[in-house]
Parts: sequence; C-alpha cells; structure tokens
Amino acid sequence: MSNAPVEFFFDFNSPYGYIAAHKISALAAKHGRTVDWKPFLLGAVFKVTGAQPLPHVPMKGDYAHHDFARSARFHEVTYNPPESFPFSPVAASRAVYWAKADGKAAEMTLALYNAALGAGQDIAAPDAVVAIAAKAGFDADAVAAGIQDPAIKEQLKTVTDEAISREIFGSPFMVVDGEAFWGADRLDMVERWLETGGW
Amino acid sequence: MSNAPVEFFFDFNSPYGYIAAHKISALAAKHGRTVDWKPFLLGAVFKVTGAQPLPHVPMKGDYAHHDFARSARFHEVTYNPPESFPFSPVAASRAVYWAKADGKAAEMTLALYNAALGAGQDIAAPDAVVAIAAKAGFDADAVAAGIQDPAIKEQLKTVTDEAISREIFGSPFMVVDGEAFWGADRLDMVERWLETGGW
Repeated sequence: MSNAPVEFFFDFNSPYGYIAAHKISALAAKHGRTVDWKPFLLGAVFKVTGAQPLPHVPMKGDYAHHDFARSARFHEVTYNPPESFPFSPVAASRAVYWAKADGKAAEMTLALYNAALGAGQDIAAPDAVVAIAAKAGFDADAVAAGIQDPAIKEQLKTVTDEAISREIFGSPFMVVDGEAFWGADRLDMVERWLETGGW
Repeated sequence: MSNAPVEFFFDFNSPYGYIAAHKISALAAKHGRTVDWKPFLLGAVFKVTGAQPLPHVPMKGDYAHHDFARSARFHEVTYNPPESFPFSPVAASRAVYWAKADGKAAEMTLALYNAALGAGQDIAAPDAVVAIAAKAGFDADAVAAGIQDPAIKEQLKTVTDEAISREIFGSPFMVVDGEAFWGADRLDMVERWLETGGW
C-alpha cells in the first residue's frame, strides 16, 4: 500500500468542501495517510466547463440550499453561511498555501472555513483573512505578507491550472493514489479505497 | 411515524437510479414502508432546467462513466450499460405503470433495469420491453396492450409533469414524508430519515 498523501482539492465557497474538510484528516490518519490541502479557484474551472454554482442552476437552487444545511447536520458540522455568497476565495486560498510551508494547512483551512461557512463571516478581503488567522494563532504580519507573496500567488494559480488539466471540476475532489472522488458524499468510498486499495 | 410509501422517482437511463432501485425496497421494508415506483422522463425535465446527461457535461464525462461503474461495484450491483445510451425510456416506463396496477412495479422495474443497465440490452423499443417482461413472467400480450393504453400513457405524462412542478430535477429522487433526497449517494440519509423522522 502507498503512503502517499490524500489530495484534497476544495474551494472555500463549497459547503460540501467545508463538510469534507472536517472529516478528511481523521479519515486519512486512520489509514496512515496525511492530507495534501489544495485550495483552488472553482470559478476558473467553471469558466472552462460552463458550469454554475449549484444555487444558480434552475430547479436545483432550493434543493441545494436545503441539502447543504441538512448534510452539515448529518455530519455534525456547524453550518451558517455568509450572506454574500459566493465570495472571492483568493485571499483565503493563498493563506492556506502560506501556512502549508509550515505544515499548518489543515489549521488554516479549518479556521477560515469555520469563520466563513460556520460563522457566516465575510472572508473575501485579505484583512479579514489576516484577522481570522491571527485569532487562530498565526502571526498576523507574516500572514499578511504571505498573501501578497508572488510565489504564494503562483501556487494558487498553478493548482487551479492543475485542477483544470486533471478535470477536477467540483469541490471537494479527493484523490487517493490517483483515484478521484467528487463530493462529500464520496467519503465512504474514499474510506473503502484507503482500506482496500480499490474494488 | 408515517407509513406513507417512499416515493422513488427515476429514469431508466440513470445508472444511479438503477443502483438505488436495487436497494430501495429492502430499505423501505426495514422501516415498515413500501415504495411508490415513479418512472419519469428526465429528458423532459432537462429541457426545463437546461441540464444535460452527465456524460455530455464538459470534464464530467470520463468521471461520470468511471463513477457509474465504481458505484455499482461498491453497491454490488452488476453494471453493463447498453451501447446506445441514452435511449428512450418511454416504453419501459409505461410498462412499469401498467404493472403497478397489480402491485408489480418493483418486479417490472428491476427486470427492465437489469436488462438495460445490467445486461446491456436495448430496451427502447416496445417489442424489447414486452420480451423482457415476458421472460420475467408477465403476460406478453397484456404488457403490449398496456404500453399502448392511453390511460397508462397519461400516467407517465402526469408524473413527468409532477416531477417538473415539484423540482425533481435528477434521478433517482427519493421522497420520504415530503423530504426529498437526490442521488444514490443519499441512501444513507434516506435510511437515517426513515429511522428518525429527520435531524
């Protein structure tokens, strides 16, 4: 069996990504794996596929909002999305890549996701991201500088391009040893794949 | 707790509907419920929503085909779709409404679904539907007449209109006491809802 990290592609606007973000670390650890946190810009992918956010799709909007909240309760994750939705995930995503260099991508992801989708905060602005990160124990000045670092900006662009080229068309997308799973509702299959190596 | 049947909306082209069709009777029975089998024409709904079959959506095609087969194996359902896909589900759907009058909708649904998505047979033509139904123990002449019965034709039209008005935008759609669940990957939630009445 491989020990490769579980790749976890997500967009900060994605409620299902938020739910899965709360589950994936424990799931991976149970099977001796780590998680490679890969925030990306789903909006850029949607430009290629022509897809729209679920709440904007005819007939699916009401169902989607209902299912977001119901799925969060099912998985026992607090869900309280912000009013302005979708929001720009750029600053938050960059903060994750900055934290990743210190092995703190999980902590940064959850702090920001919890603020946005758990507490309804607006995390679009860099200042908001810095304040949330500081509250979670990160150094505010270092985060603020990190978000503006050209190398960090490039990482987000690179992973978004990678998502497009690998046909990662939604959030969350979890990849286990090259096997791709789309959606929080595939966590049971991710678990089985980690257990068995496939079926 | 209600004893109302679990409504099971599906289109014969839907691999996830096929998987769920194999699970829903036992799931409902476990909680003292029956299943109200409601085949409908998803193509007519897609005309309203502008949606396309998953395999036709940019980037999603390869994933969808892979996930259909993987999901079927996960749920231990034999999956072998026909070459011409999607096909007209009209005759097959009418046959189910015909069988429903005798309480045999489950048997007819599974016979036709297994032929189409389990054995790769073309079930678009009424003759094919009649032959499969006959092999499953139904009276061939009666099925052939039933498929042409104006009242049966009307039932399919009515349920398809009902699907549109109730925003049943995909397959399978399972409704438990008014609570709607989309997708074979919601069977776990359907089960929890049947157990608890909601959460």
